[in-house]
Amino acid sequence: MKIVTVLYPGGDAADNPELLGYAENALGLRDFVEENGHELVSITDREGDELRGHLQDAEVLITTPFWPVYVDEAMLDGAPELKLILTAGVGSDHVDLGAAAERNITVAEQTDSNTVSVAEHAVMQILALVRNYIPAYNGVVDGGWSIGEIAARSHDLEHKTVGIYGAGRIGQLISLRLKPFDVETLYCKRTRLETTEESTLGFRYARPEEMLEKCDDSHRLPPDTGDARPLRPREHLEDEAGLVHRQHSARRDHGDRRRGRGAGERSTRRLRRGRVGPAARSRGPSVAHHAPPRHDAARLRDHARRAAALRRGRQALPQSVLRGRADGEGSPDRPGR
Amino acid sequence: MKIVTVLYPGGDAADNPELLGYAENALGLRDFVEENGHELVSITDREGDELRGHLQDAEVLITTPFWPVYVDEAMLDGAPELKLILTAGVGSDHVDLGAAAERNITVAEQTDSNTVSVAEHAVMQILALVRNYIPAYNGVVDGGWSIGEIAARSHDLEHKTVGIYGAGRIGQLISLRLKPFDVETLYCKRTRLETTEESTLGFRYARPEEMLEKCDDSHRLPPDTGDARPLRPREHLEDEAGLVHRQHSARRDHGDRRRGRGAGERSTRRLRRGRVGPAARSRGPSVAHHAPPRHDAARLRDHARRAAALRRGRQALPQSVLRGRADGEGSPDRPGR
Repeated sequence: MKIVTVLYPGGDAADNPELLGYAENALGLRDFVEENGHELVSITDREGDELRGHLQDAEVLITTPFWPVYVDEAMLDGAPELKLILTAGVGSDHVDLGAAAERNITVAEQTDSNTVSVAEHAVMQILALVRNYIPAYNGVVDGGWSIGEIAARSHDLEHKTVGIYGAGRIGQLISLRLKPFDVETLYCKRTRLETTEESTLGFRYARPEEMLEKCDDSHRLPPDTGDARPLRPREHLEDEAGLVHRQHSARRDHGDRRRGRGAGERSTRRLRRGRVGPAARSRGPSVAHHAPPRHDAARLRDHARRAAALRRGRQALPQSVLRGRADGEGSPDRPGR
Repeated sequence: MKIVTVLYPGGDAADNPELLGYAENALGLRDFVEENGHELVSITDREGDELRGHLQDAEVLITTPFWPVYVDEAMLDGAPELKLILTAGVGSDHVDLGAAAERNITVAEQTDSNTVSVAEHAVMQILALVRNYIPAYNGVVDGGWSIGEIAARSHDLEHKTVGIYGAGRIGQLISLRLKPFDVETLYCKRTRLETTEESTLGFRYARPEEMLEKCDDSHRLPPDTGDARPLRPREHLEDEAGLVHRQHSARRDHGDRRRGRGAGERSTRRLRRGRVGPAARSRGPSVAHHAPPRHDAARLRDHARRAAALRRGRQALPQSVLRGRADGEGSPDRPGR
């Protein structure tokens, strides 16, 4: 059996054997695969001739969320032996699920593999944005000491209200970590949690409208499926100019089909205009206007374009399959264990 | 009565009436002071003719920790009416306490005014350093997407060991906030906490040697008094090249009298050489080497020089007075309430 892994290059760190995600280390699978008599090819090429050449006789394709191979119908047509497309991580919106299903190809991901990492990252970002950390840090590194200007946008997190859309495993881990910061944490979820869950997690249930009115900071975590859309209708995104907008995955696309562009792209434009930042709306002005990640806009646009194309395939799937992804075991919006 | 406040300039944010720390807003005291028939002068000059002129007949001098007036004997000699030197914040190592005591001038500070802010800042910094956030952020802003190189220095905080020297109010607030991150938190303190305190805070008592051996990340929080020195002997600082070195106050000086320079300065030199960063010593290589704050070195050197000079005055105080500062009500190393 031929297994192809497409992974990011290790760069300067490639010689570290403990870091398995690099193409050089092939997820640590090489010995296991080869001892069992199979072939493992590990490359960094995500869409070129090298990849297409290997896919002609590959049975398994493994890729990662932040270095994805966009698997569309044309690519599947060039991979007649393919039986399994695996994400070494979470997320499969880089795969045309409809086209894969038609060809009896299994698409699988490592659900729950990074929930703690994402929760830690989210709490770190909340603190950094509310406290205005990066502008302060970069200001000092650049030789500044503008205490007044930095302090004007720096707040304590204490006594703020945080909103979490999609209170699955990640949202719950975030809330647990926020509890001792003395914040009020609202959550929004299709199915309300049990009383003991709410109490343990420090959560209070809220409708999206209440969140938008009350939150100093909101996080959106629902999986990117058709079913999750009611949790984040377009008007909410439109209305959030004064709220922090944060997406946990640079690759996640909040599609706005009517306008033909994603909310991610819209937020990036708002970031560029300095209009989006964490806000303590009822308590003061917006607290952080970071420099926009210049190339992030292009990356989001590129992903939005590709993911939208792949979603056309997904839309051919019956609704029950979509619901299976949104509601099934281990999905972010409804933890399985 | 003439009251002089020396505060940082508001810069672009000076017109915001909610932000009281700026010279322009004079801590919000102007109406209160003037309604009571006193004079309030609010300036930004920390050591020049404007300040010296006003001190000739001032009875109260108010300054802040990050924009300090270094009050030495010469300055006191030029302020014959002075009765009170107040820090609008925490810290009084910018004042020659011995010289002030000789002149019957009261030196006071707002103990506990920023404990939550510092604790939040510390947790934010732990997360940012362990997760390699700023290099990743700046890398993306600069157009990079070096996943491998960023990931090589990025770790989860989960299951790491954090050490806190000086488990007073701030250290305790940090530990409370770290509890749900599933870390082991060691603390070192002159007087061991009660069992219920340790349990509530998620603390485990450790000697400095054990901390140095076990910690992935250490925080030093004792007050900068002679009495606190046994908690951080020179050999521990010397030995910490492989541990994260973090100082909560850019102004704090860990003096090394034998070598005539402060540990703060030494760490800045180590930072510049890329030798200091958070390390998961038993689990992998050092995880973050931030660009050194270029001007921080000069600032630390300047503060070290001035604070050392002022400490010569402090050393004239009887030990009981020093102990009063280190052990007394509300001091960081032994909370008073």
